[in-house]
Order: sequence, then C-alpha cells, then structure tokens
Amino acid sequence: MTSPPPTDGTTTLSDTDFTVPIGDRYFEDYTPGAVHEYGYIVVTEQAIVEFAQRWDPQPIHTNPAFAANGPFGGVIASGLHTAGIFMQLFVTHYLSGIASLASPGIDEMRWPIPVRPGDLLRLRTTILAARPSRSKADRGLVHTKAELFNQTDQQVLHLLPINVLRRREPGGS
Amino acid sequence: MTSPPPTDGTTTLSDTDFTVPIGDRYFEDYTPGAVHEYGYIVVTEQAIVEFAQRWDPQPIHTNPAFAANGPFGGVIASGLHTAGIFMQLFVTHYLSGIASLASPGIDEMRWPIPVRPGDLLRLRTTILAARPSRSKADRGLVHTKAELFNQTDQQVLHLLPINVLRRREPGGS
Repeated sequence: MTSPPPTDGTTTLSDTDFTVPIGDRYFEDYTPGAVHEYGYIVVTEQAIVEFAQRWDPQPIHTNPAFAANGPFGGVIASGLHTAGIFMQLFVTHYLSGIASLASPGIDEMRWPIPVRPGDLLRLRTTILAARPSRSKADRGLVHTKAELFNQTDQQVLHLLPINVLRRREPGGS
Repeated sequence: MTSPPPTDGTTTLSDTDFTVPIGDRYFEDYTPGAVHEYGYIVVTEQAIVEFAQRWDPQPIHTNPAFAANGPFGGVIASGLHTAGIFMQLFVTHYLSGIASLASPGIDEMRWPIPVRPGDLLRLRTTILAARPSRSKADRGLVHTKAELFNQTDQQVLHLLPINVLRRREPGGS
C-alpha cells in the first residue's frame, strides 16, 4: 500500500475516550452508555465517483453531468461508500485491534440524508450493551449505535453493529 | 474508468428473470414472491486485501501471514467487501437503471460464514413486498431479501434492502 492510510489525521473529538488504547482494549473496556466521537473525513466528488464505479455503478453516484439535473443537483455518495467511511473510523479508533473476533452482522442501517461532495464527516459511537457470551467463556458481545454526522450536524448514517470481542479475563465477572 | 466493469460476464442464473429489461423496469415490475439468481463473481486474495487496506484495515483481512495462524487459516473478506459484491450484482441485474429513486436503508445484514479467497459468489433475490407510497403517487417501496451463496451453496450474506422506485403509471393501481 503506497497511499497513506485514509484516516491519517483523524482523532478523538469528544472530551473523553476509552481509558485503554485500541491496541490493549478488550470486551471489559466497552462500558454501556459511553459515547465517543472521532473524525474528520472529507468526501470529495472524485472519491464518490471512483467508489461507485467499482461497487455501485448508478449514474446518481458516477455521472456528475447526469446527476446535476437530478433531485440532488449533483452526485451523492453510494450508501455503501458512506458505510465504508464509518468502517474506517470505527476500525481506527473504536474496535479493538487485538480482541475483535468477528461480527455476526448489523441490525438496521439507515441513510437519512445523502452525503455530498465536500462533506466533512465524523463518527459518534454509543455503547448500547455488552454481555458475556453464553456459550464461550473467552468472549462477549458488544452492541453499538454508530452515527455519522456532516459539518452541519445532520445525521447521514446510522447503524447498529454487533461485535464479538475477546475478554481480558476469560470467565471472569 | 479504464478497467472493465467488475460484473463483466455475470448473468441471470435462474430459469426465469424479470420480463422487462433493467433499463425499462419500474415499480410495477417487482412482483412479490419472485425469486431470481445472478452471478458469478470470484473473490481473490488480492481483492480481499486491497479492499480491506482501504476500507477495513484489520489484519484478519489485510495480512495473509497473520491470518494464516488465525481461526480461519487465512484472510477472510471484510463484511463490507462482501456487501460490495452484493451491490455489484444487485445494481447490474436487479435494481432498475431508470426508476430507482433512493434507498432509505437496510433492515438487518448478516454474515453467517466468512468469504475466503477463491470463493465463487452468486446473488439470490426474493421480492418480499411492493407497495405504493402513501404520500407520493409517483413511486412505491420494494422490500427484498438478498442472499449471497458460495460455490458449495453456503449462505455468506443475507440482508433486507429497501428501495424506492418510480411507478410506470403514477397513481395507477
């Protein structure tokens, strides 16, 4: 990989963050109710078009001339592109770099308004629940509410991801 | 875009398809109960690593040497990459090229088993429901069950996307 990581320069935006760095973070460090924010990522028209050409080739995403006459007056990001920006921030700042075992999926994903060229996005994570696995003593499930906001505080994405994380103390309380 | 479309060579796999081509398909053409299959897309280790370096840089996706010693014996595709493969087939073969207005979101997305290098994926779509919009006479909502299967018929993804589609006959029955 010769290009710099896409999250270069992104940081914690909220007053508080996890007390444990991402490289030493386990299931026990995800405290229900904790809210954090991370950012920013700028979305360019070129990024919108290039992503969509590869993954979601609809003209509202790929063709600026076509999209200029459409309901949004220009291209909008593929919903999957917006999800990709969520994932970049989620993996760089929130999800443990050592204890993440799997994700069974996402409960609900919504795009309330489109992402447009020039938008500046930040991620807000809210830990909804964290419970030890019933079947495996070495892990637990973390349920998160994740939201992306743009520069005018409009919510452009929300989703409810589920993550399986290794426990620091297997079988402990 | 200099590279060929990622879905070159993919086709309808089921005995039946929509009676109307994707470039002339409207809300009325989505019949609840209809089931179609489209494919195939092959997933390579290079594609898994490149996608993840950009969008989901976790070593289980980006680092073959690290992943070789992990639970899967090698890299597995980012769940978002798997969703991207769904989207390629969905946009190329299923979702109208002229009448798609928006997607409010996805109800539930699950990755029952991982996608691995060499997997050959196909999409199955099942139209769950299609109802005219209550507030706008020119459009309707289509609810779909979408599933990706691998070469041994294991389900690797399922999700419930919602799409807003223009009606051929606004306000018609």
